[in-house]
Amino acid sequence: MSKALPKREEDYSAWYNELVKRAELAENSAVRGCMVIKPYGYSIWEKIQGSLDKMFKDTGHSNAYFPLFIPKSYLSREAKHVEGFAKECAVVTHYRLKASEDGNGVVVDPQAKLEEELIVRPTSETVIWNTYKNWIQSYRDLPILVNQWANVVRWEMRTRLFLRTAEFLWQEGHTAHATKGEAVEETLKMLDVYATFAQDYMAMPVYKGVKTENERFAGAIDTYCIEALMQDGKALQAGTSHFLGQNFAKAFDVKFATKEGGLDWVWGTSWGVSTRLIGGLIMAHSDDNGLILPPKLAPIQVVIVPIVKDQEQYAIIDEKIAPIIEKMKSRGISVHYDKRDTHKPGWKFAEYELKGVPLRLAVGPRDVDNNTVEVARRDTLTKETVSMDNIDEKVMSLLEDIQNSIYQKALKYRNEHTTEVDTYDQLREVLNGKGGFVKAHWDGTPETEERIKQETKATIRCILLDEKEEKGTCVYSGKPSKQRVIFAKAY
Amino acid sequence: MSKALPKREEDYSAWYNELVKRAELAENSAVRGCMVIKPYGYSIWEKIQGSLDKMFKDTGHSNAYFPLFIPKSYLSREAKHVEGFAKECAVVTHYRLKASEDGNGVVVDPQAKLEEELIVRPTSETVIWNTYKNWIQSYRDLPILVNQWANVVRWEMRTRLFLRTAEFLWQEGHTAHATKGEAVEETLKMLDVYATFAQDYMAMPVYKGVKTENERFAGAIDTYCIEALMQDGKALQAGTSHFLGQNFAKAFDVKFATKEGGLDWVWGTSWGVSTRLIGGLIMAHSDDNGLILPPKLAPIQVVIVPIVKDQEQYAIIDEKIAPIIEKMKSRGISVHYDKRDTHKPGWKFAEYELKGVPLRLAVGPRDVDNNTVEVARRDTLTKETVSMDNIDEKVMSLLEDIQNSIYQKALKYRNEHTTEVDTYDQLREVLNGKGGFVKAHWDGTPETEERIKQETKATIRCILLDEKEEKGTCVYSGKPSKQRVIFAKAY
Repeated sequence: MSKALPKREEDYSAWYNELVKRAELAENSAVRGCMVIKPYGYSIWEKIQGSLDKMFKDTGHSNAYFPLFIPKSYLSREAKHVEGFAKECAVVTHYRLKASEDGNGVVVDPQAKLEEELIVRPTSETVIWNTYKNWIQSYRDLPILVNQWANVVRWEMRTRLFLRTAEFLWQEGHTAHATKGEAVEETLKMLDVYATFAQDYMAMPVYKGVKTENERFAGAIDTYCIEALMQDGKALQAGTSHFLGQNFAKAFDVKFATKEGGLDWVWGTSWGVSTRLIGGLIMAHSDDNGLILPPKLAPIQVVIVPIVKDQEQYAIIDEKIAPIIEKMKSRGISVHYDKRDTHKPGWKFAEYELKGVPLRLAVGPRDVDNNTVEVARRDTLTKETVSMDNIDEKVMSLLEDIQNSIYQKALKYRNEHTTEVDTYDQLREVLNGKGGFVKAHWDGTPETEERIKQETKATIRCILLDEKEEKGTCVYSGKPSKQRVIFAKAY
Repeated sequence: MSKALPKREEDYSAWYNELVKRAELAENSAVRGCMVIKPYGYSIWEKIQGSLDKMFKDTGHSNAYFPLFIPKSYLSREAKHVEGFAKECAVVTHYRLKASEDGNGVVVDPQAKLEEELIVRPTSETVIWNTYKNWIQSYRDLPILVNQWANVVRWEMRTRLFLRTAEFLWQEGHTAHATKGEAVEETLKMLDVYATFAQDYMAMPVYKGVKTENERFAGAIDTYCIEALMQDGKALQAGTSHFLGQNFAKAFDVKFATKEGGLDWVWGTSWGVSTRLIGGLIMAHSDDNGLILPPKLAPIQVVIVPIVKDQEQYAIIDEKIAPIIEKMKSRGISVHYDKRDTHKPGWKFAEYELKGVPLRLAVGPRDVDNNTVEVARRDTLTKETVSMDNIDEKVMSLLEDIQNSIYQKALKYRNEHTTEVDTYDQLREVLNGKGGFVKAHWDGTPETEERIKQETKATIRCILLDEKEEKGTCVYSGKPSKQRVIFAKAY
């Protein structure tokens, strides 16, 4: 709490790293690339999980759990899938340690070598489709609508807390369907669930689109995504939903008897979001004073700080505050009364500002006399003194207002940082200048996309789902184009 | 659903395996010893998680998340700990695969060998105490009351769904304290939480006790446990709570500045329960017709089956049922209305019996005319026809009654199968005959304990916490003993 955070303007990256650390969200562990998610950071994840899990269940999905380990040979079954994940796999080769001969610690027991190596799951399509093979015989067994909350491992070389870590927590939905149409519908339905969650809970506007071939999930026919914009003008892929076609059904021989009496491969989807969302949440809203959390995902929505000089004053304030706390709790507001006498009010104010608690109520003896309370908003840093009567209603309405106002601010920023350009010079100028999303014509070839990426470091984030068709010429090659796509530098 | 389950009397083990499979709780995966927890089984785990998580939070704990991997050298820091876990560790040695030279699949890339092997966590004391080292400087940083919901891996050779699997899901609490007294108090508090959960939610009576040295957690000073009795007379260790003393603080050099100005090692506890509880839940209550689930943990508490001949009758019943469903839902009852016209009522009855749904309501056209409903209890298999008026109240009271009655039945069984004996012959006779817990005098030596184990296959489950002191002589050695301990064959 001693010195100020780095400023976003000066060093966005240092600001992010310091904020994650000082707000006690997460830290690097002694294991390369693996993070420790601290209680405050984990409580945000619990809020995310709780909200998403309800949305999944409301759309007919159930949770299940599949093995952490995947036999090496399974990964190879789907050619593109293995190509996509082979380079970043944690491999289990042995199942026992033994005392070392020099008496210092333990060594791997060479006698305990596995016949086939096991891969720590980077994603679970293979092990799940191998299971679905036994669950599906007929169209009556379909659809299967299953989700899993789990940890996965991808051996990333450059890691960053929440945004890119070797181990991360996520959910992965894996569904199986009798028809292509139904699978595509599911893919898009879950994309909508993600977009709704991002907007309504995270207060983070997103573009919905489909990835180009270069950026597609390894093994998918189509990858749909939601893309958010961070305050430094870089994009963040916040969730993906894949239409898998019959690829994994073919790789694992999953056929079903159709209603019409035939035999067909099963159609599949998969979709996921991860602890990366916490990184997005931080970068979308927070300021140089610390976190700004949308009330719907804030572990503590309201903190009450007593302003007192002695123990006697505590008793007076306690008495006044107790019924107010009860009223707020009965409305489902998460409220914390910080009575610690080891820290001064000013220190507490700074701490809750850093931790992004949406509303702070300060109550001193004079407030008790006047039946008032000082209410401070974290998002605007504004204060007002209001009556204690109906404070619970006031708090409810302020929390709604904050949720909405954070979203509107992010939306305005996103819209102001979405630029249409018609030439390659303009594209580069925007990317190197104000940043953000840039809509430009592209000729549809992976080669052009790759060259633009190498020259500008920007990728095609997606082709917008609701983008109008508009004839034009590719900003890079001058060849004809049917519609604009969205470029951006990205996390 | 075709043929009957094996009978418990004839083959308890086959009955268990078949029940787990047919009730769609879990199945073996293609990965040795790792299970797939199917949606219905997982929904029981979600109920267990939800209830326990609330109890942990109500006692001041927060959740966090620590890395899946533990550097090999960490395990060795605590001598007994490594001895306990080295023989069953999954070891990650490489971080990349590459295409094999013969073009068939992938092989481990020898260039991508880790400098230090990583162990897939069998339990997290080491990686957590290594983290706590940075979190704790002074008594002001204590206590730390953290829990983690996670998967762990212990390479068991003989596995059994839920009861003993290579990978399992669990929670592990890890707390740090300034004094021995406080740590012991925490250890016992969490043991009480487990006992309360087992009794009040699982309807499963347990003995609370402390383990002998032989059965202690590797690295603990004392291991406390709850022990339940299964219907075949075998015991199941259902949860453990460890007083770690300063063992892990010493191993990871975790010291703190005391209030008095000194420097001391931090005191620790750890405690856990796992998906094994689901195995216990099944074996404690279920019968030859299938699962019997206590209402508090049943994913579906009430199922409504319409008894109809044609679509028109459906409409009549729907109309009558809709407000009843709403009333039950508003009371928090989990109710499922099974309208499928692909299955006959009799088939559905058998299915919900197999799946242990506590109450089944059947409604036909005559019931609609008479304003009645047939209510069937899963635990007693009794039926009664009752009025539809206030059916929600009736259901509430029946669910409470079932919860209580399942517990009382299990308690009676447990008490009838707890036998005091005074000679070794009697001990063997009971163990080989009626089974269950046997209270006998023991001389307190690991040698005697080990011999009894080899000769009878029974272990000392625990020394009861509330056992009275009573002088006697060891049933095996004839040496003096201070109190009786509990022997049983166990899972």
